[in-house]
Amino acid sequence: MTPIVSVNPDTGESVELALEETSPNEVVQLTERASSIASDYASRPLTWRAQLLRAMAEELEADAPALVETAKRETALTQMRLEGELRRTAFQFRFFAGVVLDASFLQASIDHATDSPMGPLPDLRRLRVPLGPVAVFGSSNFPFAFSVPGGDTASALAAGCPVVIKAHPAHPATSLATFEALRRAARAQEAPEGLVALVFGVDAGVALVEAAPIQAVGFTGSVAAGQFLWRRANDRPTPIPFFGELGSANPLVVTSAAAADQAASIGAGIAASMTLGVGQFCTKPGLLFIPSNADGDQLVTTLVGELRTLSTMTMLSSGIASHFRSGVSDLSNIPGVHHLVTSDDGAGAHVGAHLFEVSDAIFRDPSAHRLHDECFGPLALIVRYGNSAALATALEAAEPSLTLSVFRGATDPDLTWLLEFAQSRAGRVIVDGYPTGVGVSWSMEHGGPWPSTTSPSTTSVGAASVERWLRPVTYQNVPDEFLPEALRDNNPLGVPQRVDGVPR
Amino acid sequence: MTPIVSVNPDTGESVELALEETSPNEVVQLTERASSIASDYASRPLTWRAQLLRAMAEELEADAPALVETAKRETALTQMRLEGELRRTAFQFRFFAGVVLDASFLQASIDHATDSPMGPLPDLRRLRVPLGPVAVFGSSNFPFAFSVPGGDTASALAAGCPVVIKAHPAHPATSLATFEALRRAARAQEAPEGLVALVFGVDAGVALVEAAPIQAVGFTGSVAAGQFLWRRANDRPTPIPFFGELGSANPLVVTSAAAADQAASIGAGIAASMTLGVGQFCTKPGLLFIPSNADGDQLVTTLVGELRTLSTMTMLSSGIASHFRSGVSDLSNIPGVHHLVTSDDGAGAHVGAHLFEVSDAIFRDPSAHRLHDECFGPLALIVRYGNSAALATALEAAEPSLTLSVFRGATDPDLTWLLEFAQSRAGRVIVDGYPTGVGVSWSMEHGGPWPSTTSPSTTSVGAASVERWLRPVTYQNVPDEFLPEALRDNNPLGVPQRVDGVPR
Repeated sequence: MTPIVSVNPDTGESVELALEETSPNEVVQLTERASSIASDYASRPLTWRAQLLRAMAEELEADAPALVETAKRETALTQMRLEGELRRTAFQFRFFAGVVLDASFLQASIDHATDSPMGPLPDLRRLRVPLGPVAVFGSSNFPFAFSVPGGDTASALAAGCPVVIKAHPAHPATSLATFEALRRAARAQEAPEGLVALVFGVDAGVALVEAAPIQAVGFTGSVAAGQFLWRRANDRPTPIPFFGELGSANPLVVTSAAAADQAASIGAGIAASMTLGVGQFCTKPGLLFIPSNADGDQLVTTLVGELRTLSTMTMLSSGIASHFRSGVSDLSNIPGVHHLVTSDDGAGAHVGAHLFEVSDAIFRDPSAHRLHDECFGPLALIVRYGNSAALATALEAAEPSLTLSVFRGATDPDLTWLLEFAQSRAGRVIVDGYPTGVGVSWSMEHGGPWPSTTSPSTTSVGAASVERWLRPVTYQNVPDEFLPEALRDNNPLGVPQRVDGVPR
Repeated sequence: MTPIVSVNPDTGESVELALEETSPNEVVQLTERASSIASDYASRPLTWRAQLLRAMAEELEADAPALVETAKRETALTQMRLEGELRRTAFQFRFFAGVVLDASFLQASIDHATDSPMGPLPDLRRLRVPLGPVAVFGSSNFPFAFSVPGGDTASALAAGCPVVIKAHPAHPATSLATFEALRRAARAQEAPEGLVALVFGVDAGVALVEAAPIQAVGFTGSVAAGQFLWRRANDRPTPIPFFGELGSANPLVVTSAAAADQAASIGAGIAASMTLGVGQFCTKPGLLFIPSNADGDQLVTTLVGELRTLSTMTMLSSGIASHFRSGVSDLSNIPGVHHLVTSDDGAGAHVGAHLFEVSDAIFRDPSAHRLHDECFGPLALIVRYGNSAALATALEAAEPSLTLSVFRGATDPDLTWLLEFAQSRAGRVIVDGYPTGVGVSWSMEHGGPWPSTTSPSTTSVGAASVERWLRPVTYQNVPDEFLPEALRDNNPLGVPQRVDGVPR
């Protein structure tokens, strides 16, 4: 049995928790338990489900001081950031309570029996039903909002699915404490026991993806771990959907006109965005396309100056910091790459901000493909471009991404081509803004083309994230008493229905 | 160069067409051509797109006599069936014109900038955009409705995606003639050249799945071919979604009360459904759960009698018939399986109907797992069950399926458990009806859990099939003039929009 250790990345101090890694057998038992209560949970009224989600928000808020304290010790993130993140996490549960009550995710549709050019059609009614038990992998970088009580857990519960969660090893105590808050809420609402479950350990994670009762996986993390687990999900005797939100370089383009208008403010803004949360955001702007002219020089000078004022920062774990240092060293060794801001990174989890620069010609050279990878942490690579044509070619060489940001100026020529390109290569297109804020809302898309996500038609943030955990079923000629209530003619739940093709 | 041969399965006569298999290079060129016009096509107004789909319906109808004649020669399906299928195919294009104009598939959502418990949120607007060029594989069994001019092609064009189609080798002349009808319509509407393209040959099919510009694949066909291509799609440097609609045994349950009430009519109905189109339907009822009592005996007697009246039938090709004969021989050799109806199948594409019977105990024995596979053609396997508990165990042993049908009687006890089971194991649940009719409508689901489909959250028939070809994009703080029209505040297209969380 391997005990679980909680490490303070700032001091290196470690505490052994009264917890062990979950054995593959225990993982299977938890998923079987989840499976045994899946239909009970799915059949609870939508109003009850919404109340459960609100109760979870309340339990998290009630525990806020202790949760923030624990997370601070395990992640080295600031008090203010963690307080904000916990507010967001509670908000997220309430938001999904609203999504449940809105009920449009059910896509309820009723076609009464009719004649058609194909001949008579029977009574057909379609509804999206919960998939059953799903697995959620907590991320390292958001110990609340993308972890045990994160968006994947909230959206899966909103969809009507039991959730078995794999804790991220960088914050086991936070994972356990937040899990206990969710479970308290579930018990207080008399949810079926085992609706949420928690497992620890790498082997437990693999066993979870492979456990027969699991019907889908939500994952937020690295490209390497995500693609490994995605393959496992596909190699099962019964493959299951794997919704992986992986890394992304998040290109940010500054047009010549934008550099002319606001070099200093954009330079300062980029410095803040790329080092927010020690650069540990999926949406950190990691690739900066800046014109190679005097205005671009001024922007870079401001950016460099801002980064140099920063003191050493603490990453989420020494392992993550060590990976970051490798990334820095790799970039430093590529011919033609200039290291504009360099820091003495010290040891353990402590690192400084880094800034690199290349020409567009070197960036688009196939031999320099490592330049295109995300480096998780406070680092960005500037690509200096000569003109729009060079910009277009360099952008074309970059990988698709979660986001693509464009800063424009008052005198810009037509930007249609750039925004069309952005739309074809990213899940979120941003004008005159930084990508690091990811609001929870009806209109948020937090997914992008491969390799930034494994399933580009889905999102892990926002109302549409609930759709990942559902599967449509059509009921043909099924008598009223056996139909799900959402599909009955008298619509006792008052859910949105499309009736004979017309939305009601 | 391998010439393409059109074979009449009835006579064995073959004609060499003035066509060759498409080389992998040509496949890549066609997909690059499709890619080059994708954004032109995607930007055409929805009204124009709807008009294109209607024009395609008209061209197919204008050619109906010649198309039916050609298909009859290549498939041995009846004139009446093919005329009906072509009507359905044209209807399908018009139906998708309606789906385009309805525009709810865009999921347009506008969240104006606001304050939230997470702090200020920027203006966020979300829309589903076309994926780009997609591949469609024509099936053998529906030379119109699931082939070149089939639902996958119509729904992808409705979504705004160019389509490169792989013709099924069993009906190349029909594939070419229907393709020419679609292309004539596209040219008459001044669609960009290359919007629809056609390729021939097995190697061309693999090259198509692997071609870099292709963004998704729609496939209807066998489990073996579908899973092979699904793996190829996942093994690409950039994996793409593969929407495979594969085989399915389609369990049909007759309760004791139903057998008591209507043994004769259900027996006759099953005989008609399982031999419709020579049993070459994805939704053929292939597994019949019938009580082992006197009423069940009477039902089986009727079914046997009906099947024995049938003369020899012609399958779609001698290859498919040869596969069918192997399936018959495999089943005959499993201990405990009774061959109730057997026919002298003759040679070539000619076969007779077959009916087998086992006890529930043998069916659920793991060593008899071959009993659970679909056998494509006019064949069914009866599972005789003793009581509800035995039925439940036997059903549990069957694979998930596209459909599950239940015939009930006036005196049935509670059927809730059976319909809940059906919902968990099938995409379409049918009461007192046969699964072989698959209407094109808003409420149709033609997909089921793995292995009946590779992507159980989607459908290849009905309005929702258009969703497979789309990807959401969020526009953050994007000025009005650069926004897609569907996301503008003044809603010039009049599409359904969700505004600040409220559907309009």
